[in-house]
Amino acid sequence: MRIALLGGTGDIGEGLALRWGRDTDHELLIGSRDPEKARDAADEYEATLEDHGRERTIKGFANEMAADRADVVVLAVPPYYAGDTVDAVADKLDEETILVTPAVGMKGDEDGLHYHPPSAGSVTELVAGRAPENVPVVGAFHNLAAAALADLERDINLDTLLVANDDDGKATVRQLAEEIDGLRALDVGPLANAAEVESVTPLVINIAKYNTDLEDVGAKWL
Amino acid sequence: MRIALLGGTGDIGEGLALRWGRDTDHELLIGSRDPEKARDAADEYEATLEDHGRERTIKGFANEMAADRADVVVLAVPPYYAGDTVDAVADKLDEETILVTPAVGMKGDEDGLHYHPPSAGSVTELVAGRAPENVPVVGAFHNLAAAALADLERDINLDTLLVANDDDGKATVRQLAEEIDGLRALDVGPLANAAEVESVTPLVINIAKYNTDLEDVGAKWL
Repeated sequence: MRIALLGGTGDIGEGLALRWGRDTDHELLIGSRDPEKARDAADEYEATLEDHGRERTIKGFANEMAADRADVVVLAVPPYYAGDTVDAVADKLDEETILVTPAVGMKGDEDGLHYHPPSAGSVTELVAGRAPENVPVVGAFHNLAAAALADLERDINLDTLLVANDDDGKATVRQLAEEIDGLRALDVGPLANAAEVESVTPLVINIAKYNTDLEDVGAKWL
Repeated sequence: MRIALLGGTGDIGEGLALRWGRDTDHELLIGSRDPEKARDAADEYEATLEDHGRERTIKGFANEMAADRADVVVLAVPPYYAGDTVDAVADKLDEETILVTPAVGMKGDEDGLHYHPPSAGSVTELVAGRAPENVPVVGAFHNLAAAALADLERDINLDTLLVANDDDGKATVRQLAEEIDGLRALDVGPLANAAEVESVTPLVINIAKYNTDLEDVGAKWL
């Protein structure tokens, strides 16, 4: 499968690229608004993977071109760019392209981070509202600490939660998630259930803030 | 320590009473608006504990009387009764009595449960606003499935998340939580961080709904 990580130069993009790069054979495309930055990040991820014994070719492109070539497009962008990034690649998407959104809106104060969803109810639903109607949208990878993913020395034992209205798209993303060693995917129903999933992201950051032995913590549902 | 479970005839009250009854020597008082119902529940919990090899005396009282006698008062009531229950027992509380609140506001639809906090931001903060000013308020036990606690055959390996502005109260509740076998308590900072903690409760119910092998699921933060 061909996976494009739009905004793949950022931290969650790096984490997913390195895990998929190490644990699977899927072709990875790094997207960025600036294709030069995308190519630099792709080279860097290749080098990290080579250090971990995986020879890999990872290519960098402008977001539009990465999306055009992919079967699965991950919107690994900050929440306030998610809608605009969908608009920018919309004519490259169709019913054969699964759009995956991990972004979460948050606001910080001295106490910690707080969930701050857009008026659509969640960033996941905002993305679904902006995407062309026939494109399957899956919310996933919201609550994974990017630094934990990007540290390939670290064994993970975590869950990721999936929301989607499209069952086939959800099944594909479940498989892609579970191909990452130590990651289990759990179904949380339709897109309308995204807010409670996204809200765990500020929570895990608060847990890390107040428990010094739980850096880059994630959740396991038992 | 003497722990009063107000609304202790309900499901989370039962779960905490049975776990503390089995795993600790703290004195347990079951409170209810109807003292007769409280005594019946207390008798029932005694019988369950006896079946599990623990001889215990558990007493039932009207909520006011249970609160009056306790060092720790757990508001094990539905969210829409939390404020009124605080008002009803307010003159029995003082700076020596820790008030613990596990209730969460939720609304359901066909997709699942959704977080529905009161205008105070969270039930935890609503309780803190209604309690006399000098009473330490601790949010805890929000995300534990009552049925999992109440089933003493079930070994748990879960976390509970603590929020409080009062460090001493938080430390006491942490100790009470961790005296339950298989339960770890994690700090999530002040009361202002309660909403993200409470929001996990509808999420775990949604996870249970969409994953048949995860009945009465809870969270472990890793």
